[in-house]
Amino acid sequence: MDCKKVVIALGGNALQEPGTPPTAEAQFEVVRRTCEHIAELNYHDYEMAIVHGNGPQVGRIVLSQEVANQADAELPVMPFDVCGSMSQGYIGYQIQQCLRDAIRYRNRDIPVVTILTQVVVDKNDPAFRNPTKPIGAFFTRDEAEILTLEKGYLMKEDAGRGWRRYVASPEPLRITEIDSIRQLWDTTIVIAGGGGGIPVIENMDGSLSGIPAVIDKDMTAELLAEDIRTDYLLILTGVERVCVNWGKPNQKELAHITVRDAVKYVEEGHFAPGSMLPKVMAAIKFVRRFPDKKAIITSLDKALDALKGNSGTVFTMS
Amino acid sequence: MDCKKVVIALGGNALQEPGTPPTAEAQFEVVRRTCEHIAELNYHDYEMAIVHGNGPQVGRIVLSQEVANQADAELPVMPFDVCGSMSQGYIGYQIQQCLRDAIRYRNRDIPVVTILTQVVVDKNDPAFRNPTKPIGAFFTRDEAEILTLEKGYLMKEDAGRGWRRYVASPEPLRITEIDSIRQLWDTTIVIAGGGGGIPVIENMDGSLSGIPAVIDKDMTAELLAEDIRTDYLLILTGVERVCVNWGKPNQKELAHITVRDAVKYVEEGHFAPGSMLPKVMAAIKFVRRFPDKKAIITSLDKALDALKGNSGTVFTMS
Repeated sequence: MDCKKVVIALGGNALQEPGTPPTAEAQFEVVRRTCEHIAELNYHDYEMAIVHGNGPQVGRIVLSQEVANQADAELPVMPFDVCGSMSQGYIGYQIQQCLRDAIRYRNRDIPVVTILTQVVVDKNDPAFRNPTKPIGAFFTRDEAEILTLEKGYLMKEDAGRGWRRYVASPEPLRITEIDSIRQLWDTTIVIAGGGGGIPVIENMDGSLSGIPAVIDKDMTAELLAEDIRTDYLLILTGVERVCVNWGKPNQKELAHITVRDAVKYVEEGHFAPGSMLPKVMAAIKFVRRFPDKKAIITSLDKALDALKGNSGTVFTMS
Repeated sequence: MDCKKVVIALGGNALQEPGTPPTAEAQFEVVRRTCEHIAELNYHDYEMAIVHGNGPQVGRIVLSQEVANQADAELPVMPFDVCGSMSQGYIGYQIQQCLRDAIRYRNRDIPVVTILTQVVVDKNDPAFRNPTKPIGAFFTRDEAEILTLEKGYLMKEDAGRGWRRYVASPEPLRITEIDSIRQLWDTTIVIAGGGGGIPVIENMDGSLSGIPAVIDKDMTAELLAEDIRTDYLLILTGVERVCVNWGKPNQKELAHITVRDAVKYVEEGHFAPGSMLPKVMAAIKFVRRFPDKKAIITSLDKALDALKGNSGTVFTMS
């Protein structure tokens, strides 16, 4: 049987369960269950690369460092790009270990590795003029002013709960480690672009510098799917299908959607920014780039059905 | 020209400078200088894989989490294996970025990637009966007792400064991700086995579980050098050459040493445990395994000279 190639974007619910404590131990349990589903895809001859989110994890890495720093000034708060690299280590390790075990349990022996991934963004990306992603702890107005003065943080008032640091969410342009991902891809399950990748900009001399930003992991998954020309971009989230009129009496699940209709629904405001919207935008981008391929948005437990055409929301060119 | 293959073990001084603040920013500067030296080796046609230490970094990750947890019980202290994975992300990212830049500056285009690495140890390793590696913060006797009761930590009194957690330093048996490292090795500079690797044990069913332990990074570098059959194991440290009678009037630098003499010096107690001893042990092991190859212990700035035979301490079989 011919292997089909898939890039899988794992959403937050694939790593943590709402209401459970934010510990590494609890996350391991969720990751273990997630990897059972992913191993099933592999067992059904899908080759895959995995991109995962890191929002809650990197948020807590920052928060923990901020609290420690307030208690002991000698314990530094790391720059946000470094916190991102730590979250790639943390989450990549858990997926790598659990997925290897789940695949071996099915009598297969396929390597699973995490490649630390930097993703280049444009320092003139318009997103930098309007940072939209809150990270870390809440501060008082005075503390916020000090952070702005001392560290250059952009602080915004957050719905009466205090002041919070905001960073931009620029578009991913290039995966720095793409050559190595391509080289491994045929034989190996590669975990890459975690948290959307460590955001870096390219300086005039071609060198790279990390910057504080959050790259949307669905857009990075799309870029990876383009780069390695997969048959599917599979974006996993909490619901089986994308809906229009979400939460209204006329709510409607979509089993199939053309790029033209998807654009119309986006313009009509059916999808929430920071939630379903980036997933739909990533799906549109992938199918536009490769009109003979498919993007699918569905839930983890419907992923195999969806790849077989029996579930999920399938995006096609026409 | 034929490329020679090297596994490089980077010591703590290649990542941090004594007396500078333990920030990621300060570390970036040291890593940048280190990578200039490593890029020079690459420029002189040495192919390489890099293993780095993580002692101070993982120690501060644990310490920062412990301080944060004391201030806010909702911020968890991660298990030690997870902290190790975070340190691989942190340090790997910095080396990967700086080394790429330093290599491109020399008009070469060679991928540099970090592969998160698990290293299997034997749960019956005698090291577990006598844990020797202190990690994290100092606690009072009462706090230490609570940690032992609640988390099973082994706490020891540390030279009057308080109580501290100790973990074992078992021998590395197998690098879980070795197939992928082998596959990349010919075209790519691979950073792997950071901090000696994330320590895992193999369960009865073949699955892996992380455990609290510190694997000596020089021993992991030796294992990697065996696995990919490099020409050299190059262990970098703070001194140009290994000495006998270190610090005494009859101190003597060694330019060349046979395995037989090295064993004799080890038995005579010339090398400090946790410092020069594991480096010498790793060098002995590698040359015993491949009697036609060489192990070298030297400083970063003498590395190129040492590979050319003009510096360092060279270990050979006879």
